[in-house]
Amino acid sequence: MKKFAIILSGCGVYDGSEIHEATMAMLAIKKIGYDFELFAPNKEQYHVVNHLTGEVTNEKRNVLVESARIARGNVKDLKLLQAKDFDILILPGGFGAAKNLSSYAKDGEKMSVDNEVERVILDFHKSKKPIGAMCIAPVIIAKVLPGSLVTIGQDPKTAKDISTFGSNHKNSNKTEVVVDYDNKIVTTPCYMLDSNIAEIYDGAYNLVNALLTL
Amino acid sequence: MKKFAIILSGCGVYDGSEIHEATMAMLAIKKIGYDFELFAPNKEQYHVVNHLTGEVTNEKRNVLVESARIARGNVKDLKLLQAKDFDILILPGGFGAAKNLSSYAKDGEKMSVDNEVERVILDFHKSKKPIGAMCIAPVIIAKVLPGSLVTIGQDPKTAKDISTFGSNHKNSNKTEVVVDYDNKIVTTPCYMLDSNIAEIYDGAYNLVNALLTL
Repeated sequence: MKKFAIILSGCGVYDGSEIHEATMAMLAIKKIGYDFELFAPNKEQYHVVNHLTGEVTNEKRNVLVESARIARGNVKDLKLLQAKDFDILILPGGFGAAKNLSSYAKDGEKMSVDNEVERVILDFHKSKKPIGAMCIAPVIIAKVLPGSLVTIGQDPKTAKDISTFGSNHKNSNKTEVVVDYDNKIVTTPCYMLDSNIAEIYDGAYNLVNALLTL
Repeated sequence: MKKFAIILSGCGVYDGSEIHEATMAMLAIKKIGYDFELFAPNKEQYHVVNHLTGEVTNEKRNVLVESARIARGNVKDLKLLQAKDFDILILPGGFGAAKNLSSYAKDGEKMSVDNEVERVILDFHKSKKPIGAMCIAPVIIAKVLPGSLVTIGQDPKTAKDISTFGSNHKNSNKTEVVVDYDNKIVTTPCYMLDSNIAEIYDGAYNLVNALLTL
């Protein structure tokens, strides 16, 4: 019985976790027959975006509190996540990965990674436990684990930034996964390509299945 | 090619749309091969709940703006929804259905229904187009269309309230649907029972499939 840990980054594609990617990862794990727990950093969001207009608002929201919407309340502070309690780690995408889990949206190739997110990724990596990442979240893996092979789809600028971290990018199509067997990393592009929600599920399913082979 | 309209009620089980129910309905429609558009009322939420603690906060949020998080921005004002443009209507659940689309959470058997929600349900019903509802949302159908047969799972108090509206309740188990052939209504209990996310998908899939037979 494999147990997955999933790191959320808020609730909504433009300032938090991409909701479809998060829920489809959860569905794929359950459909394949395993269980998961949800975690998120307990800190203020980088900002809040009105998802109807795309404009930044003057609201303040907390990443853990908003992640609880996707989790139906059942989410824990990321500080409590330790690799010894789980078999596999997954980071869904959404701008939350690039705004709350890291500073990639703001800083590009000069990005930094949230201390707790970095600690958790290193903990799973040192424990030789597989790590999956969706959409834009693979940039975090590429930054924390130089030498990784990941995909974010086909965006040349992001692929170039990944190479400046000392990691490698491989182009991919909708629903495909790229597997780094040496580092036990699986990544899939999701909404970094023009996908629909059924393709997000297929990508999540392929990701979870590939993680289980490592 | 059947086209579905889905009415959202915010983003998060305790004050808006239940996110899993909304996304699993969207996934089921796409997997079966059809398309959907999303709508929500453009009005202030009844209230905002901190989903981590369950406490009501002093924030104000707009139903349409928060629904846009589930919709990735692609959601329209419910005022624009007309039955003539669609084949089938679906209302996912979550407390948003009982707080923003109706007053059931506050008023119980004395509930009222949002004017636009009522208009849309009557429009689809008069057009003899099928209507689906998940979780607690069937109480809205039962209220707007007396004489309906619906399910909300197995809760005796809600079932009794439905009978005071002149409608009928049939108990159901996880993932099951209840079909009212006369009124072209399909309902399924989802998180009104102790379901997991895979069971929510199965219920949504069964709902969409049953709607397509009517």
